Amino acid sequence: MVDATPNVGGVPAPCVFCDVVAGRVAAVEVLRDEVAVAFLDHRPLFPGHTLVIPVRHVETLAELEPDEIGPYFARVQAIAAVMPQALDAGGTFVANNNVVSQSVPHLHVHVVPRTRGDGLRGFFWPRGRYADGEADAYADRLRGALAGSV
Amino acid sequence: MVDATPNVGGVPAPCVFCDVVAGRVAAVEVLRDEVAVAFLDHRPLFPGHTLVIPVRHVETLAELEPDEIGPYFARVQAIAAVMPQALDAGGTFVANNNVVSQSVPHLHVHVVPRTRGDGLRGFFWPRGRYADGEADAYADRLRGALAGSV
Repeated sequence: MVDATPNVGGVPAPCVFCDVVAGRVAAVEVLRDEVAVAFLDHRPLFPGHTLVIPVRHVETLAELEPDEIGPYFARVQAIAAVMPQALDAGGTFVANNNVVSQSVPHLHVHVVPRTRGDGLRGFFWPRGRYADGEADAYADRLRGALAGSV
Repeated sequence: MVDATPNVGGVPAPCVFCDVVAGRVAAVEVLRDEVAVAFLDHRPLFPGHTLVIPVRHVETLAELEPDEIGPYFARVQAIAAVMPQALDAGGTFVANNNVVSQSVPHLHVHVVPRTRGDGLRGFFWPRGRYADGEADAYADRLRGALAGSV
């Protein structure tokens, strides 16, 4: 196996999630295979809150190679699919921070069990509104940036 | 094309996101192809907040077929990848609610531009701690449920 630990000037930079993959840092694991390792966040939003990381070190979602996207999100999906029944939850919250609010710069998707009335409802507020023409201007910028990329 | 509008007792049930796919409901679109449609949330958390939906009607992440996962998340990735530069953002928040807090029962992933100090930091708090042995008990339940599923 290629050691995918990030390098800084030829010297491996420490990455706590690479250490989890390598077994140098202990974690309460839920899943481990050649694609991903999933383990419990040690400071859960709710008990059972799981982090899914790719075995290969990438910092953000944008850095996954095209042929890695399906296998990686299949693991995310598998955990989200079993979580409600396994943990008597009503649903799941699946989330990934890239750069801003990203505590560890190794891609990780949170899979969190949800229950109605659990208090997380507030995270997606307050919501704004667009002024006339503003939405089109934002969409133009995204469309322009996307041109030919998918 | 197969009409994937959900059915209730043989009668198509209304789905506002299927209506967006079909062009019956207007949306400010960012991307449209045979796999997914992406459009601006009309009540954005921050301007440029985009929803990515699969063309085929599924309610939750768990319902995507194995061969749909890669193509769908490639579209999510594409938008997350271009968003920082396109919108002068520092990063992105990529999130999906399944059942609980899911306003429209058609799978949608939010891709939200983030900037340091934008105030969203609070959404992932407060965090808890596990009592002795509690984490292992939760992991056991997830591992048991996952057995053989990936």
